[in-house]
Amino acid sequence: MLAEFDLIRRYFMSSQEASTASNGVTLGCGDDATLLLPQAGQQLVVSVDTSVVDVHFPREASAFAVGHRALAVALSDLAAMGATSRWCLMALTLDQRQFANDEATHAWLADYARGFHALCQQHATTLVGGDVTSGELSIGVTVMGELPVGEALTRSGAQAGDLIAVTGALGGGAGGLALWQQGERDLAHPLLSRYLLPQPRLAAGLALRGLATAALDISDGLLADLAHIRDASHVGAVIALDALPLADELESSLGREAALKAALSGGDDYELLVTLGADDVAEAQQRLVPLGLSLTVIGHCCEALGVTASGQSELSRYVSGYAGWQHFSGEAP
Amino acid sequence: MLAEFDLIRRYFMSSQEASTASNGVTLGCGDDATLLLPQAGQQLVVSVDTSVVDVHFPREASAFAVGHRALAVALSDLAAMGATSRWCLMALTLDQRQFANDEATHAWLADYARGFHALCQQHATTLVGGDVTSGELSIGVTVMGELPVGEALTRSGAQAGDLIAVTGALGGGAGGLALWQQGERDLAHPLLSRYLLPQPRLAAGLALRGLATAALDISDGLLADLAHIRDASHVGAVIALDALPLADELESSLGREAALKAALSGGDDYELLVTLGADDVAEAQQRLVPLGLSLTVIGHCCEALGVTASGQSELSRYVSGYAGWQHFSGEAP
Repeated sequence: MLAEFDLIRRYFMSSQEASTASNGVTLGCGDDATLLLPQAGQQLVVSVDTSVVDVHFPREASAFAVGHRALAVALSDLAAMGATSRWCLMALTLDQRQFANDEATHAWLADYARGFHALCQQHATTLVGGDVTSGELSIGVTVMGELPVGEALTRSGAQAGDLIAVTGALGGGAGGLALWQQGERDLAHPLLSRYLLPQPRLAAGLALRGLATAALDISDGLLADLAHIRDASHVGAVIALDALPLADELESSLGREAALKAALSGGDDYELLVTLGADDVAEAQQRLVPLGLSLTVIGHCCEALGVTASGQSELSRYVSGYAGWQHFSGEAP
Repeated sequence: MLAEFDLIRRYFMSSQEASTASNGVTLGCGDDATLLLPQAGQQLVVSVDTSVVDVHFPREASAFAVGHRALAVALSDLAAMGATSRWCLMALTLDQRQFANDEATHAWLADYARGFHALCQQHATTLVGGDVTSGELSIGVTVMGELPVGEALTRSGAQAGDLIAVTGALGGGAGGLALWQQGERDLAHPLLSRYLLPQPRLAAGLALRGLATAALDISDGLLADLAHIRDASHVGAVIALDALPLADELESSLGREAALKAALSGGDDYELLVTLGADDVAEAQQRLVPLGLSLTVIGHCCEALGVTASGQSELSRYVSGYAGWQHFSGEAP
């Protein structure tokens, strides 16, 4: 095993040094812990996500994608709170037996670090701590952001009558996984890119502060994540299947029904799911225009704690029978 | 696999609820991220540590010890900065195939959570985030503490002439591992306890603020960790072998020479290694008395960037030939 300190230093510290001074980092990597200076009047927003090989990403995924994706899924949680990302810590567990020699290890690490750092830079996030250990390939990323006190987007503010909307398009994560399993390897393919290089919607979360009554990121799938809003806000949902914005090439790749199922329950989309008052939709959409991001109304919140779908009858049954939801039949309340 | 949310909720959230309100936690586990309110005028101190089965702890270690130890090694980094611990995040990767059935999984998790929480409570640390994934057993712990601005103990302040001291006793980590490998399983054995249930020296770190010129925790072994002080402070070290405080039962278990080697390079002791002016030693020792903890002077810093040992000649050669140190011969400068 290469010495831990060498690894950290070579691939993760040097490129960060330039940015540390300007981002509240009093003492960066290299001591027992890092010293940070939060801004006065701000709340800290923290979350951790682990990405495990063969569970969250395929073993053959490019190291660049592995680095990007591990950070992206963690940043997505900050986006869902409306937070600004500032710092992250990265715990890499690396199975050196998977590499033929030290050179191969170095090449993998360099590519991994490029993917991780590029996304750090895109979101002004400084890597302030790390750990490299030996074992099955896995990456734990802790993200730390900031928010003015009282402005967080939580899961608990949705009310019956609020509209339900999503940023961007759905089903791309599951669609990309399906393509990967069929042998597609071109990261430029829009679905594969959605699966392996998801874009955390930090700018959208920030833009929706003060408008969204509840928010989360779609990681488990629309229906599963709607259930989290239900549990926290005590509202049900009515979804219009025909309104679901499908990822590019999803329908042509999988067919209409599989595409809709991917959008409903596929997960790994990392779009924001928000609820908001009907009067605020136009303003919210306007705020996302400069980001090149759509905000599509896909349904509304209701009092009955179930989910129902209007649209094709077979898929409506799929929705109302979805695990995690109590069966909820009848007309939309 | 048990549902992730059930796991987190059942074993990690409920026992935390009581303590969250009183510890700056505005919004606890259960949303996309946690909201924390740092104290004004304080720096944040953050670090991450990963513990992997068969690398950092034996597969057969009790779940209680695994939970305790994963947190302890992370908290030890805060101790080394002189920080007060406040919050932690815990990413557990669990291989459910290792359990015969769900009942066995539950039993393991309950025991693990007891070990983790007991140490949380001991150090007033609130678990504010978690992630549970499936894979080879591994725990990533991010710890967050606070420090008044400018009061951190770093690795870079040691000067030639400073004395070198350690809290408690050395060699217990390596001695416990040796006993474990010989089949000893009684956690009440002082060496096994040092190995599997290390105590992070947070109170000692706090007490040594303003006195220690440099500090770190001994995780890699005395000689390896002295090299970190050397690299950050640009000083060498002279160590008196006869002065090394050995863990209880270490010498009787391993013999004198192996005991000294365990103390020099065994690692996993999680004691604090500090440098301080000769005039401050008595005051520092006095401050640790209420903690029931000794502070033993084991040598001094010198200008030549090597390490030398006074004492048995064979072990002196072992010290000066230790990897990570340039060969440094001759009399103590």
